[in-house]
Amino acid sequence: MKIYDSQVAPNPRRVRIFLAEKGVQVPYEQVDIVSGANRSPEFRKKNPLATVPVLELDDGTCIAESVAICRYFEELYPEPPLFGRNPRERAIVEMWQRRMEFHVFLPIVMVFRNCHPFFAGRIRQVPEWGEVNREWAMEGLSWLDRELAERRFIAGDSFTIADITALCGIDFGRVSNIRIQPEQKNLKRWYDEVSSRPSAKA
Amino acid sequence: MKIYDSQVAPNPRRVRIFLAEKGVQVPYEQVDIVSGANRSPEFRKKNPLATVPVLELDDGTCIAESVAICRYFEELYPEPPLFGRNPRERAIVEMWQRRMEFHVFLPIVMVFRNCHPFFAGRIRQVPEWGEVNREWAMEGLSWLDRELAERRFIAGDSFTIADITALCGIDFGRVSNIRIQPEQKNLKRWYDEVSSRPSAKA
Repeated sequence: MKIYDSQVAPNPRRVRIFLAEKGVQVPYEQVDIVSGANRSPEFRKKNPLATVPVLELDDGTCIAESVAICRYFEELYPEPPLFGRNPRERAIVEMWQRRMEFHVFLPIVMVFRNCHPFFAGRIRQVPEWGEVNREWAMEGLSWLDRELAERRFIAGDSFTIADITALCGIDFGRVSNIRIQPEQKNLKRWYDEVSSRPSAKA
Repeated sequence: MKIYDSQVAPNPRRVRIFLAEKGVQVPYEQVDIVSGANRSPEFRKKNPLATVPVLELDDGTCIAESVAICRYFEELYPEPPLFGRNPRERAIVEMWQRRMEFHVFLPIVMVFRNCHPFFAGRIRQVPEWGEVNREWAMEGLSWLDRELAERRFIAGDSFTIADITALCGIDFGRVSNIRIQPEQKNLKRWYDEVSSRPSAKA
């Protein structure tokens, strides 16, 4: 198997961190998304939506979507569990994973896509939508700071996929000047902890 | 346990269809989202993001996010499996569930939120973003039509959560005049089949 990867996009990093936490080695092949190699007919055979990452299994099956790839490895390598340890925990982790996806990661990506010069001429940008999302992203971080007053990690007392999604989103915010605010001390405490894990370098 | 529900929103319907497919009965309590009951301080104790559905367990734990609730019931009632039968299938179902979420359901919701009079004055609408999403939604349906030339259901030969997400999204598109096009015969064949399942009335 191998993973089609990109070092410059936030979604592939979610998978790299996940696998680093599991201690699993999978060969990576870089896809040059800046030059548009992901939009080639050849790559679209692997993923018609032209996104990375894509996991290619030995039988040729291609699994796109970062979280789908992470779930696959969770089943193959259950330890340490990054989606929860029982049905109740797994539901709570899924809730937080989705909250981080829709209220932190996605707004931050929307700011980049709609406001950053990189996408000018590549997609139809709507700068006003980027500004709405900038507000949402800042509200999301503020809410997360309040939530993290109560617990060590986002979904409870263990590091999970929800932490990975939030970390990759927040780090990607830098290019759009979306940052943890000085008064967000709980969020900063969490960020410093998850960033110092060896997996964060993945 | 009980589920905080709304008959007028597309996300709670995903859970209702899911439970109907499982043959599981859970008490529903209606939340009047039109008058804003979901934004009350009391409801925000159950879900600070003020969205429905929310599953409240007997110990008081509240699980928000439709897909998190569905996964919880998948573990409690594994038959019929709606997330796949083995790790490879579950990865494929998750890929398609997310594709339906981000390329069908979400664009359709974005059109509604940014263009419909219901949200005027409630949120900051960006009509241009709604129009971009209308194009994406139509492209999403066109792509899905091509994909469904090859198989009976969205993720393979079994009905899954991916079908539920797509069905709820497409039905919600009507209010924004987003509809399956006459030439999309594969999509229409699929739609007629999934709509005629008893669960679709949920």
